[in-house]
Amino acid sequence: MKFRTKPAKGTQDILPEDMALRNYVQDTIRNTYREKGFTQIQTPSIENIELLSNSDGGENLRMLFKILKRGEKLDLQAGENDLSDLGLRFDLTLPLSRFYANNRNDLPMPFKAIQIGDVWRAERPQKGRYRQFMQCDVDIIGESSIVSEIELLTTVPEAIKRLGFDNFKIVINDRRLLKEMVLSSQIDEELFGTVCISLDKVDKIGVEGVRNDLAEKGLTEVQIDALIKRMDTDLASLDSDAAREIKQIIDVVSAYYPVEFDPTLVRGMGYYTGSIFEVQSSEFKGSLGGGGRYDTLLNKYQNDPIPAVGFSIGFERIVDLLKSKNVKVETEEKIAFVYIDPIYLSKAVALSQELVGKGKITSLYQVKKNKVGKKLNRLKEEGFTEIIVVDNLEM
Amino acid sequence: MKFRTKPAKGTQDILPEDMALRNYVQDTIRNTYREKGFTQIQTPSIENIELLSNSDGGENLRMLFKILKRGEKLDLQAGENDLSDLGLRFDLTLPLSRFYANNRNDLPMPFKAIQIGDVWRAERPQKGRYRQFMQCDVDIIGESSIVSEIELLTTVPEAIKRLGFDNFKIVINDRRLLKEMVLSSQIDEELFGTVCISLDKVDKIGVEGVRNDLAEKGLTEVQIDALIKRMDTDLASLDSDAAREIKQIIDVVSAYYPVEFDPTLVRGMGYYTGSIFEVQSSEFKGSLGGGGRYDTLLNKYQNDPIPAVGFSIGFERIVDLLKSKNVKVETEEKIAFVYIDPIYLSKAVALSQELVGKGKITSLYQVKKNKVGKKLNRLKEEGFTEIIVVDNLEM
Repeated sequence: MKFRTKPAKGTQDILPEDMALRNYVQDTIRNTYREKGFTQIQTPSIENIELLSNSDGGENLRMLFKILKRGEKLDLQAGENDLSDLGLRFDLTLPLSRFYANNRNDLPMPFKAIQIGDVWRAERPQKGRYRQFMQCDVDIIGESSIVSEIELLTTVPEAIKRLGFDNFKIVINDRRLLKEMVLSSQIDEELFGTVCISLDKVDKIGVEGVRNDLAEKGLTEVQIDALIKRMDTDLASLDSDAAREIKQIIDVVSAYYPVEFDPTLVRGMGYYTGSIFEVQSSEFKGSLGGGGRYDTLLNKYQNDPIPAVGFSIGFERIVDLLKSKNVKVETEEKIAFVYIDPIYLSKAVALSQELVGKGKITSLYQVKKNKVGKKLNRLKEEGFTEIIVVDNLEM
Repeated sequence: MKFRTKPAKGTQDILPEDMALRNYVQDTIRNTYREKGFTQIQTPSIENIELLSNSDGGENLRMLFKILKRGEKLDLQAGENDLSDLGLRFDLTLPLSRFYANNRNDLPMPFKAIQIGDVWRAERPQKGRYRQFMQCDVDIIGESSIVSEIELLTTVPEAIKRLGFDNFKIVINDRRLLKEMVLSSQIDEELFGTVCISLDKVDKIGVEGVRNDLAEKGLTEVQIDALIKRMDTDLASLDSDAAREIKQIIDVVSAYYPVEFDPTLVRGMGYYTGSIFEVQSSEFKGSLGGGGRYDTLLNKYQNDPIPAVGFSIGFERIVDLLKSKNVKVETEEKIAFVYIDPIYLSKAVALSQELVGKGKITSLYQVKKNKVGKKLNRLKEEGFTEIIVVDNLEM
């Protein structure tokens, strides 16, 4: 019996060239984050099912991979909810919340965390979307002042720059400003969520599109006019804590990276409570990463409120973009030692061993005499910069 | 409702100091392997359940984490075997076999693979054993000559050396020599497996212990005497392909790393067909890694036979040993910029930004005036080598 050799539906095998690119992206991000005082942690890929199921995961909960109970614990008569005791994590934020509650006595305050790891979602397979993909998050837990936002906004863009992206800008808004905008337009607070969904589409459908969208949702022309007018209001003219904070963040960060206020930036996740931000590139639609402040999310797992801000860089998108730009990771000198007669094996080994620790890549190949020409061509294709045929030559 | 904040049973949260050590070990291993011409690949953590269940996984199959089918595919009336369509991988060798069959046309021949990744086994939790742990494998696929063994045995020990282990040696044997030994002692081939189990224990129970063990299994004194005598036979006096190959491997490798023949080395896994080897340290019992040749394992997934040799380094054991030796990863210069009055925030940012890309770690802290002393002490404890209080000082 031969087996299906394709990877499981929606997952991928990663070949050497792609893996080298992924390692390069991961190392660049990690090194940049480390320079800015963040330290890496890791949580398990599997979490107790109660933690995952009772989270604010929204749509992600429908896409949960649940793990079957094992041995005596498995009762086939039980309902679906009793068949599983564990699940694969669908993001890194929920595990971080649990991790922080579990380990806070052993962590600095504030705690600046790097997380790099795979997450799993049973998404409908489609181009560029995988059921297992990597996330890279930085979070600062325990600091309520804007120094956290400023640290994140001078860290993540630096990594993006080092990865070779030039034409990007940071856009920033605040959940509280969005709310002020809706309320000051005499729109009922209940409609806040649905109005945000319309605003979020302005890049795609334009201001007129947003107008139509809001009208269809039953807003009056007066309300819509007020809202659209407010979208043009200068940040400096707004007089609230949120506006002052966003202005100050922009003042400081703009000395180093392009950053601008975007009153229509919404970001989907429901748990943000203050600043929200994204890195956008003019080279393509969508963002290279985003995040915001979530000062209440951790409350669920502790007895006291803990402020937190996070920024997730779009690892898979960045890898795809670099691949589409045909970016290759530079390789060191690669030397192949080829021999035909096995009596030269130990000589080939000796030549290779002389180069150990000298930053060169070496590899040994035993080749049949009638296949030498073909093999040498193949090694050139594989990127070997030097090919040495080992025989009775004096070195 | 507050949630259980411990990680799932048998799994662990990894804190910054341990994570830095794990990254150091992983990077050292990967860099050493890359220098020797190996390239990294990655397979998904989840595989189709048929692949996992129909493997030679032995004991590991009892410890499989199975994933529940989702949505319409889940039929609660179905038996246990129909409830699951996926599982978490329990090792990296089975996925490599599938990967190679799936991608061989896009891979060099021979293919020298690095795999570094987590595997999952529902083991009974015990000290030092986790249900999620990391494996680091190197394999050479497609080469039947001993150049593969020699490449592995000059690669893995180099990584172990770079990680600071001095007192280690490679021990080597061959499955074919084990068989010759059993058959030449007039022992029935059927008893090969059980005799190996006894031989494997010689380090723990001594030669007398092995004698008793074999006697209990019904072997005659003549057979046991022959077997024990053979254990002392010089490798040079043996006249078989296997003996000549092992001798040649030892001849070449011994110029670089200590290596010796061990006629009682067995190694558990059933799939080895030729050479088997381990790295042992005099500092503790057990091995730092091991492997061998498995020339038939891949046949299951292809139509033609493909030779292969692999070596798995004991990543978790090495991390534990370095931790017990209190090895810390050297950190770069760490500078904290501390300010009390928020008007100095932008100055603190500017000072930190001046150090970007200079191989230093910087971090910003807003501190309340009455807590400055305490904070400075805490930052020293956290390993900051320099603490700069930012105020109206001229720089």
